[in-house]
Amino acid sequence: MPFTATVLTMFPEAFPGPLGVSLIGTAWREKALWALETVDIRNFSEDKRGFLDDTPAGGGPGQVLKADVVARALDSLTGSPRPLLYMSARGRPLTQARVKDWAKADGIVVLCGRFEGVDQRVLDARGFEEVSVGDAVLAGGEAAAMVAIEACVRLIPGVLGQAESLSSESFEDGLLEHPQYTRPRTFEGIDIPEILLSGDHRKMAAWRQAQREETTRERRPDLWAAHLETRPAEPSAKSKLKGAKARGE
Amino acid sequence: MPFTATVLTMFPEAFPGPLGVSLIGTAWREKALWALETVDIRNFSEDKRGFLDDTPAGGGPGQVLKADVVARALDSLTGSPRPLLYMSARGRPLTQARVKDWAKADGIVVLCGRFEGVDQRVLDARGFEEVSVGDAVLAGGEAAAMVAIEACVRLIPGVLGQAESLSSESFEDGLLEHPQYTRPRTFEGIDIPEILLSGDHRKMAAWRQAQREETTRERRPDLWAAHLETRPAEPSAKSKLKGAKARGE
Repeated sequence: MPFTATVLTMFPEAFPGPLGVSLIGTAWREKALWALETVDIRNFSEDKRGFLDDTPAGGGPGQVLKADVVARALDSLTGSPRPLLYMSARGRPLTQARVKDWAKADGIVVLCGRFEGVDQRVLDARGFEEVSVGDAVLAGGEAAAMVAIEACVRLIPGVLGQAESLSSESFEDGLLEHPQYTRPRTFEGIDIPEILLSGDHRKMAAWRQAQREETTRERRPDLWAAHLETRPAEPSAKSKLKGAKARGE
Repeated sequence: MPFTATVLTMFPEAFPGPLGVSLIGTAWREKALWALETVDIRNFSEDKRGFLDDTPAGGGPGQVLKADVVARALDSLTGSPRPLLYMSARGRPLTQARVKDWAKADGIVVLCGRFEGVDQRVLDARGFEEVSVGDAVLAGGEAAAMVAIEACVRLIPGVLGQAESLSSESFEDGLLEHPQYTRPRTFEGIDIPEILLSGDHRKMAAWRQAQREETTRERRPDLWAAHLETRPAEPSAKSKLKGAKARGE
């Protein structure tokens, strides 16, 4: 069996979306290097009227997806156990390290929430890992599920082929990637940075590394602080490091 | 003109995906409260063979999407200026604050990258804001674009109707949401927390607030540190705050 991504959703028609195109799509449909499966949560109501949700215990706006409905949908799956993800603004942020772990499994099961959320008891009882993508609230978990699945699937051997590189990319060593340039040499009056045309590979590598550090420091102070902890730090970096330690990071 | 999300992509067939379902989809197709438009980047090559990409200046694996191709795709758009987003692992993380700003605009234009990235000159020259969703690398920007668009569109008045609440949700005040529970009272031997059935609204509110704080502290130390800076802190919290200040946050 190839790596199988199973999505529990009220809207299977939202899939495959981006998972069906380009090399990811070809790897699924033509090469069978991975499989995508959707399970319609709406089929697992035992309520006569087909209801999936009910009002929040303790009051409050909206509706909550019922624990027993999710449990039955999950219990309908066969095969070996796989990591269970629940896409949720309450989750821990998606990281490349987690993605790498999931990509080594037989696949993943991804629950997409709707309404105000899912009854916490089924998440706790079944061991769902709550995962967020970006600090923004969505209407449902489907788009976030696609992000998580695509991130996993592209790591499966053979999926990207020779077309893309997996090393030296953002997050692989805790730094963001350097900027990229290509022909023509001049675009709307702006030249490609001179050094990239110099042919001096040592200087180019140093320039790219400096760009990576600058971009990470500027855009991702969180990654930068973590990076400093794992590298021999210069004097100026050490004082920042001290602050991070005081916070217990 | 309603809020218009225009996507520049090599794979328009990936859309609408989750943007076409549920209340978000109805608000687009039936109520015209917002509009989704895709622009196929592949139509903007001036190369005889239709190439969109070329090798990275300075060497390295993969291919880079050409600046002039993206510029022509962008210049084909009409109407008033809108925020320009480029979905990229190099970007600043998506936040609810940025989403709220974008939702107030006439719409957004979202560029989806492929290959090793986009020539930096067109991003800089046209003022693209680079945005990441989750610390993971994707094969393309389409799934991330759906996340950003869905987050914006759900804030447009009338889109969610009465069905969902916009206040008291994760990120609105810097804390994650409390867990949710609903009937039945007992699920697989686990009861709904007693306090939520007590009817004592003050106690329930205090319990939910404590849950929000605990979950945020545990899952999102970054949000928790930021939260402490904006709230009157207890003694134990103050020492953490000092650490955060030392880091210049």
